[in-house]
Parts: sequence; structure tokens; C-alpha cells
Amino acid sequence: MFLNTKLTDMIHEILIPIIKPGDTIVDATVGNGFDSLFLAKAVGPLGKVIGFDIQEQAIDHARQRLESEGLIDRVNLIHDSHSNIDKYISHPIGGAMFNLGYLPGGNEGIITQAKSTLEALEKISCLLSRGGFITIISYWGHSGGSEEKEAVEQFLSELDNKTFITAKFNFLNRSGSPPIVYLVQKL
Amino acid sequence: MFLNTKLTDMIHEILIPIIKPGDTIVDATVGNGFDSLFLAKAVGPLGKVIGFDIQEQAIDHARQRLESEGLIDRVNLIHDSHSNIDKYISHPIGGAMFNLGYLPGGNEGIITQAKSTLEALEKISCLLSRGGFITIISYWGHSGGSEEKEAVEQFLSELDNKTFITAKFNFLNRSGSPPIVYLVQKL
Repeated sequence: MFLNTKLTDMIHEILIPIIKPGDTIVDATVGNGFDSLFLAKAVGPLGKVIGFDIQEQAIDHARQRLESEGLIDRVNLIHDSHSNIDKYISHPIGGAMFNLGYLPGGNEGIITQAKSTLEALEKISCLLSRGGFITIISYWGHSGGSEEKEAVEQFLSELDNKTFITAKFNFLNRSGSPPIVYLVQKL
Repeated sequence: MFLNTKLTDMIHEILIPIIKPGDTIVDATVGNGFDSLFLAKAVGPLGKVIGFDIQEQAIDHARQRLESEGLIDRVNLIHDSHSNIDKYISHPIGGAMFNLGYLPGGNEGIITQAKSTLEALEKISCLLSRGGFITIISYWGHSGGSEEKEAVEQFLSELDNKTFITAKFNFLNRSGSPPIVYLVQKL
């Protein structure tokens, strides 16, 4: 793994050694289901993936992808906002993945929003077990993306450093609005 | 590997899969020799590590460490500034590692300087082979550290993005002046 890798693949490579078989992991933004599929493989037959998306199209695509790989039994796909996660999960989770922005290939008018993203991050940070992680890829070039990115960065900068380590990875010489990665680990 | 790891160990874990046996790699700041030792193991018996340090104390400590591990034959330790690298190397190199700041346990008045660091970075970026890397851990809490960090960041931000990918990793919620990691890969 190094810099000439797709960012999503880079995150997967980072997570492979830290996801344990049997873990419960949240895919906070199912999208086209690539992260859910990765997680379903990583948690193994005794693990569980819980995926959220507000778009039925995303849930449908992800379900098809997971069914065709024979892994749908490890995944609960929930057609609701990740900000309602506390309605569905109350036990500790091993980690959560976010992709912030809009659904690739979908309606670019439907984007994740700062308010619900922060609600989800707050709730998920409380649900994390010791050593648990949050990964966030922030695509922020669209209208409203910058505000969401700033809100996420401020939230992570203020998370109690006795309980969490938070970090940021960004490209320095790419033009446009290159995606930013935020990482969280619970101590 | 994740956030609750020593930064030096994190860098080593990132580099293990990308250093190839037989590579020539530069340790631009030998210090106590931990990176040289790591690199000597990674490049294997046919590889070469070329280490620079302006402090004789650092070179001596590193030599002892490498001798005690039986790996000194893979390492050329050069008592000179990394900014003079072109006097010693003219063929392509697989990568280079920097730790910017002062020698841990040594004289805190002797620090890497923005001017010579930039000279070394410029020369090394020209020497990198395709796929080659530069890693930089910037310890910048000391007097003059901030200027060096800013200079490095500006240099990397302006490196031609058709030839190089450059990136930054930093902690968001650590107090004080937490170290920053800069990464470069030649395309």
C-alpha cells in the first residue's frame, strides 16, 4: 500500500489487520455496497455488518452485490439515516466506515449532511468498543461538502484525547478538491 | 497497525510491503540508527542503505547497533549533511526516510534546518526511481521547528503532481505540537 492506491483500497488495507473475526462493524454509508462487501469478508461467518443508507437504490444495489457473493447473511441492510443508529444498535461495535458526499452514479442532489453526519459520529463514538475505529472518506467538492468537512474536522479535533485518537490524511499536491481521510480509534 | 502505534513503527509497517529486496534506500537522518536497522533488514543481503548524519555521536551509535545485529555490511554510514547527497549518490534510489528535529537523547541545540532539509529533499526527489518513496516525520515543537515544517509542506505542495503524489498525516486532538508525517511517492 502506498499513495498510488485508490483511497478506498488504502482504507481496506489499513483495516484488514485490525478487524477481528466475529466483530460487529457498521457501514454508515452503504452506497454501492463495496465497503459492506469488504466488511462482510473481514468479519467472517460469525461477524456482523450493519449497513445504513437513506437511498433505496443504494440498499438494493448493495443487496444484489452481497447476494451474488453469498454474503448477505452476514449483513443487515437498513433503509434509514445513520443518525438513527441508536434505534438499531445498543451493544458495543468494533468500528464504522463512512463515505461522505453523494452516491457515485446516483443523484448528486442527495448528499450526506453535516447535521446528520455529526449525529451519527457522536452516537457511533459512544458505541465503539476499546480499540474500535471509525474511518471517514470525505468527498467535499460539491456544494455543501466544505461545511460538512469542516464540521467533521472540528468534531474530531475536540474529541476527548484521553479516550480517542483522531487523525487526518490529506493530499498536498492534487488539484481540485481531493478527498480527505479522517481516522478515529478508541483507546 | 492503527493510530495507537508509535509513529516510527507505523511508518515501518507502511514501508515493509513497498521496499523490495535489493533496493538502495537512504536514511537521511541516521539519529540513533533505528531506521537504518529497519532498512538494512528490509533491503536484504543484496540491498544497500546509505545513512547520513552531521553528528558523529549519531553515526557511532548507529554503527554499534548495526554491528551488534550483524548488518553493518549492508549500510554505508556517512558523516555529512544529507544536503550533500549528490556527492555520494548518482544512481536511482528506491526511497528515503527523514526524521526532522533533534537527535533524541542528544544535543537539542543541534537541529535539522529548513535550508539543508529542502536541499536534501530536492536532490532526493530527483534521485527517486519510479514508485520510490520519501517518508518524513517532522518533530517541530522546538525553536525553528515550525519554520522547517512550513518549508517542507510548501515544497511538497508545489511538487509536480504529474510526477509525484504528496500527502500529509497529522493528529487532530493531541495537545502540544504532535509530530506530523509527510509522504511522497514518485509515479
